[in-house]
Amino acid sequence: MFGLTILGNNSAIPAFGRHPTAQAVTYEDQVYLVDCGEGTQQQLAHYRVKRSKINHIFISHLHGDHYFGLIGLITSMGLLGREHPLHLYGHPTLKTIIDLQLEAANAILRFPLLFFPVTQPGVLLDSPKMEVSCFAVKHRIPCWGFLFREKKLPRKLLPAKAIEAGIPPRFFHQLQAGMDFVNEQGVIIPNSLVTLPNPPGRIYAYSADTIYDESLAGIFAGVNLLYHEATYLHDLKDRALERFHTTALQAGEMALKSGAKKLLLGHFSSKYEDLSPLLAEAGDVFKNVELAIEGVTYRIF
Amino acid sequence: MFGLTILGNNSAIPAFGRHPTAQAVTYEDQVYLVDCGEGTQQQLAHYRVKRSKINHIFISHLHGDHYFGLIGLITSMGLLGREHPLHLYGHPTLKTIIDLQLEAANAILRFPLLFFPVTQPGVLLDSPKMEVSCFAVKHRIPCWGFLFREKKLPRKLLPAKAIEAGIPPRFFHQLQAGMDFVNEQGVIIPNSLVTLPNPPGRIYAYSADTIYDESLAGIFAGVNLLYHEATYLHDLKDRALERFHTTALQAGEMALKSGAKKLLLGHFSSKYEDLSPLLAEAGDVFKNVELAIEGVTYRIF
Repeated sequence: MFGLTILGNNSAIPAFGRHPTAQAVTYEDQVYLVDCGEGTQQQLAHYRVKRSKINHIFISHLHGDHYFGLIGLITSMGLLGREHPLHLYGHPTLKTIIDLQLEAANAILRFPLLFFPVTQPGVLLDSPKMEVSCFAVKHRIPCWGFLFREKKLPRKLLPAKAIEAGIPPRFFHQLQAGMDFVNEQGVIIPNSLVTLPNPPGRIYAYSADTIYDESLAGIFAGVNLLYHEATYLHDLKDRALERFHTTALQAGEMALKSGAKKLLLGHFSSKYEDLSPLLAEAGDVFKNVELAIEGVTYRIF
Repeated sequence: MFGLTILGNNSAIPAFGRHPTAQAVTYEDQVYLVDCGEGTQQQLAHYRVKRSKINHIFISHLHGDHYFGLIGLITSMGLLGREHPLHLYGHPTLKTIIDLQLEAANAILRFPLLFFPVTQPGVLLDSPKMEVSCFAVKHRIPCWGFLFREKKLPRKLLPAKAIEAGIPPRFFHQLQAGMDFVNEQGVIIPNSLVTLPNPPGRIYAYSADTIYDESLAGIFAGVNLLYHEATYLHDLKDRALERFHTTALQAGEMALKSGAKKLLLGHFSSKYEDLSPLLAEAGDVFKNVELAIEGVTYRIF
């Protein structure tokens, strides 16, 4: 299961029961936290996302609605007796802030807090099944989007065909890795006869906070799910520009241009109690779009 | 109206829907915020306490459950266009933390944020009707309790008696201030004939986080309302001691020894879903006791 659980979908000021940005990317037994606005630890508890499964936290930028809940989450993890390492990725100043607050509390964490400063685009995490990379977006302060790329899975074995071809089971692993088999008579049995290619790894893209920027379309090309900020309706496009944000219409255009398979809108302005006009506006240009709703898990496929 | 609205009554880790410490002391049209745990801005909105009426914020100490919500509240005040000054009282390092976070966000507040470092006991705020002072309590890190002392009100004028005594209304203000009146014949009309003394100013005491410390009884002497932490039941008195906290029984004893009129218990450990045993334990030694419940406003009288 590769999914995205929305913990907060609002922009700067909490309103209408909506929370500032935080989301949990779940992949098999791992939870990757993306941004961590105030109240995230309570949202995690509310939606039963296990804190103990979070081993990597990615912070896009240092506007408070994207990280003011981080120190509370880290502190609680410490109080709850966590011992396994936590990896934190963000602007170098984030470490200064966290260290200062821990020091002021005279708090010593019993788990390793491993900090990785994000200063240039590239791969942040390379694990056996998932690669996470960052890319620069255009905001008022340095800001990074994240790509979660499922690694290409092994080929799918066709056991009946393999046995029929006389391949001993101890070689099946190599077949899944794409190798041909050569039998004792020196006959080559091509891999394609006994396996099927698996679908390519799925990709989730998180736009973070950004101005509408067509140069991002290449990064979002063909992603399975694009979460794009849609702070305002397009009648406020000047305000969006001035504040380095995107309109719902522009988010739809970005999805269309990039060839993303599905678009999820988020980071809604506190101006809007009713979010349906944002959905309608993006839907006019890109059909497969949904609103990011807190507590909902969106499957990535 | 002199009241206390509980915004958070829990200790370090949020649990059972309870929030970390924050409370609003309301006096006439002023709101004084005491501590500001994570989520306070949302609790203020939830319980309809107007942010704009908060002009003074007092932070007891730099454990996160008492101030992690402060930067979010300040940031939101700025985004909402606040222009009038905000006075902030706390450990000197608090200013370093706030400044660092504002700088990282490239945020410029449009209102003056006036910081008053709390480094010794004494008066922090001396306004016409309310005096706020701090006193040191004993915790793992420097920690301050706060006393809200209503100033003695003007004497209560008895207008019929004053007119009967031939005192012109333009002198009534001086009568309320306690002065005698001398008429044109040189006859002294004693103040006590035409006014009544008003009751003394009411006092609210906030214990903050502290070990049970009998030397505080003098500070709490005769206060109208004492909010005392009661993190644990007394069977965990050793843990309370080790972590510099108080048990419910000890909170009751403190109220009894000090002669406080009423006791409010708070800062409950996340161990306890049911808080009634804490109430019962304190009630065994001090009758006029209540649990601090979020969203409830306790009148101070």
